[in-house]
Amino acid sequence: MRVEYINPFIKSLVETFDTMLQCKAERGSISLKEEPGTLHEVSGIIGLSGKAVGSVVVSLSREVALGAAGAMLMDEKSELDADVIDAIGEITNMVAGGAKTALEEYSLSMSLPNVITGKGHAIRFPSNVKPILVPFTTKWGDLAIEVGLEQVEAPATC
Amino acid sequence: MRVEYINPFIKSLVETFDTMLQCKAERGSISLKEEPGTLHEVSGIIGLSGKAVGSVVVSLSREVALGAAGAMLMDEKSELDADVIDAIGEITNMVAGGAKTALEEYSLSMSLPNVITGKGHAIRFPSNVKPILVPFTTKWGDLAIEVGLEQVEAPATC
Repeated sequence: MRVEYINPFIKSLVETFDTMLQCKAERGSISLKEEPGTLHEVSGIIGLSGKAVGSVVVSLSREVALGAAGAMLMDEKSELDADVIDAIGEITNMVAGGAKTALEEYSLSMSLPNVITGKGHAIRFPSNVKPILVPFTTKWGDLAIEVGLEQVEAPATC
Repeated sequence: MRVEYINPFIKSLVETFDTMLQCKAERGSISLKEEPGTLHEVSGIIGLSGKAVGSVVVSLSREVALGAAGAMLMDEKSELDADVIDAIGEITNMVAGGAKTALEEYSLSMSLPNVITGKGHAIRFPSNVKPILVPFTTKWGDLAIEVGLEQVEAPATC
């Protein structure tokens, strides 16, 4: 994956947490994910297609999911109920939407967010796509984004 | 979700299993998924966008995942290794691709497949999208498809 793809996602995550959730997200070390690893307990995922194809995953610990959904809904949340799941889907949507705008030359369109729950789940990409993993820490705990995008070959002009 | 969306996915799954894997997939009862439930251990997911947006999930028990990947790779598989994950991603891609062709009036484009592993994982859709769940049985065991698609409102003409 091209490294230039990742910055708009990082910026979008930091801005979403800052403006929507009044929460500072501090970035850790970026790494190319060579081996599949398990993620946090709650992962939002959204597919992207256009002149590049792939997906973005926003994976949060239960504490971050509850804290972030609570801040968005202005309500204290203690369970991963439908409102929390919708809030995590919406946060994933905003992170992807901000990056999509910044990557406008790729004419990306987005699918709907899905939210995966379950301790110890892993999200694998096709083996020819090496996703980039970026961890963050917040006042609620840890989260990470994982982005795997592949440029689509332009058809040869006749 | 419109019921007319689901038939192309059912047909595409049966054809993919038949032609690519030489395996008959028998359909069980279709249901609207009101409550989130856990899926099988291995789930392929692919995002769709166009005049409708959403995603398709192909969820397989470990035995079906190993059997299907083994048939595709013409090799006996006993672990969920990278080759098996790629094969499940490719099967998900073929199921979505067949349905996309049949639903051409929606001009769908597909993201890359992701494969989720982990016992007891659940994949949730936004609460306003009620996905349709279709179980199948095969000689290897059970699988299911879950499709959640929402029509995009056409912009008003001026």
